[in-house]
Amino acid sequence: MNRILFNEVVTRDGFQNEPDFIPTDAKVALIDELSRCGYAKVEVTSFTSPKAIPMLRDAEEVMGRIRRVPGVEYTVLVPNVRGAERAMESHADELNLVMSTSETHNLANLRMPREKSFEGLKAVIDLVAGKAPVNVSLSTCFGCPMEGEVPQEEVLRWAARFADLGVRGLTICDTTGMAHPAQVARMCEALQRRFGHLQLTLHFHNTRGMGLANVLAAVQQGITRLDGSLGGLGGCPYAPGATGNICSEDALHMLQAMGYETGVDLDRLLAVARRLPEIVGHEVPGQVAKAGPISDLHPAPASVAELRRAFA
Amino acid sequence: MNRILFNEVVTRDGFQNEPDFIPTDAKVALIDELSRCGYAKVEVTSFTSPKAIPMLRDAEEVMGRIRRVPGVEYTVLVPNVRGAERAMESHADELNLVMSTSETHNLANLRMPREKSFEGLKAVIDLVAGKAPVNVSLSTCFGCPMEGEVPQEEVLRWAARFADLGVRGLTICDTTGMAHPAQVARMCEALQRRFGHLQLTLHFHNTRGMGLANVLAAVQQGITRLDGSLGGLGGCPYAPGATGNICSEDALHMLQAMGYETGVDLDRLLAVARRLPEIVGHEVPGQVAKAGPISDLHPAPASVAELRRAFA
Repeated sequence: MNRILFNEVVTRDGFQNEPDFIPTDAKVALIDELSRCGYAKVEVTSFTSPKAIPMLRDAEEVMGRIRRVPGVEYTVLVPNVRGAERAMESHADELNLVMSTSETHNLANLRMPREKSFEGLKAVIDLVAGKAPVNVSLSTCFGCPMEGEVPQEEVLRWAARFADLGVRGLTICDTTGMAHPAQVARMCEALQRRFGHLQLTLHFHNTRGMGLANVLAAVQQGITRLDGSLGGLGGCPYAPGATGNICSEDALHMLQAMGYETGVDLDRLLAVARRLPEIVGHEVPGQVAKAGPISDLHPAPASVAELRRAFA
Repeated sequence: MNRILFNEVVTRDGFQNEPDFIPTDAKVALIDELSRCGYAKVEVTSFTSPKAIPMLRDAEEVMGRIRRVPGVEYTVLVPNVRGAERAMESHADELNLVMSTSETHNLANLRMPREKSFEGLKAVIDLVAGKAPVNVSLSTCFGCPMEGEVPQEEVLRWAARFADLGVRGLTICDTTGMAHPAQVARMCEALQRRFGHLQLTLHFHNTRGMGLANVLAAVQQGITRLDGSLGGLGGCPYAPGATGNICSEDALHMLQAMGYETGVDLDRLLAVARRLPEIVGHEVPGQVAKAGPISDLHPAPASVAELRRAFA
């Protein structure tokens, strides 16, 4: 229970929300640096339509150029059968499918009812069965910014439908940062009870400052898989000025301080995180890259030595 | 155990770190607005030397002009006997004394060894005995930015010395944001066991993003008293660019969502928080004032209604 398997989503979920195209070279270089930091998994890109998400139009090239490190899983987001074919051609280690547990959010985001999304994702699962493991990310599991409450039973119902199709894992997403720790504890307890045989990942945002509190609530329930984004990149279109995904290095710093084994070299990761503002052209929300880890000490001012002598 | 008593420290701990003097009128107006939000306690100002902290040189005037709301305690920071006399003349409801559990931090900050600080604070406690309740804030209880680790036993030893002097309360401060949730849980458990008869307050900073996770760890141990600063104001001189105190409205928003009773009118507080950047002349770290509380829903885009019809 002391091992955390962390999935870095900055080049997909983080970059997807950036206004200016990030050059392919910069994406490949960043992923290669992240690969050497010790993550369990990296969500590289999305095989969606280049028109829908121009930022990730270079998915094939990125997947072809990154240097894969043994032991790191390279997962990609896949919206449909066409995307799945592209992902398989690119030898993705895992296909990550996505739909929302809120009908309104699914209509707003994926432009179809949930039932139609489910049919489409089922076709993908049928297509890749036995060829690549599938993870399904369920959006808005802790609340929809338009509908409000999403009942836990509704989340469990969609989770069960995908579990019945034989997926390897489920990611339970707090897409717009509406989760609070008591809700997370209840959800994780129910998920572990019903889907403990699957790889269960929790995906939090820090929109309202509760990101790491929700991480704490999740790991207290025995959750071992988490998503995070370098620097906390990944805005929410409904909350201008608000922060996005939980910051990977801040979450890993907390978990390591608490004694969890993450496999991640934090110093190395912080060096990468400190270069992120240059890559995206603006400041990012992450705190530990600015303040330094708690192990970074500061020299005492000269006055302290003088005072020690004066009071000796 | 479901009631949280929150102490707002923005006009003392928050303002103290601001570079430009905030006019007395603005301080009084802000405190009067905060008083009507439902806080249990407000730390108004500090009766320190006007030369040491010019920002709080108007302590008497502020204390004289604020409109006190019944049920709210107005506490003030007091460094020594002279400050205590001024605080008593200003009819403070509580005197909050401060020293550090780290020798180096005490020398750097208060310019004397801890033992000398203790003697000075004991003189204050003797002076006001039977006249006003005393709280003692112990700094760097979860680590010193210069010394590093501060052993829990060292914190408990200083706490015991003040408990023996008959203080009403102790505030255990994570002065530069070095605490992590496992450490907080251990500390709170030990504090409750040994000093459960005192008013125990936890004071966290969000320097490394762990502020609300530490709040969660504290309340899980039965802690009911917390400090926080409006907007998350209150920087740390050792961490440029890092955030300061935990943000009151973000902490209260989380605790209320979890079902805790705080007595605070969150909508009213958010309206006050949204005026803070104008008062201090810069953006502040608080998230909920930007993103809105989780109960704030957004209208669905027009396309959703069209899609509903198309798929009906």
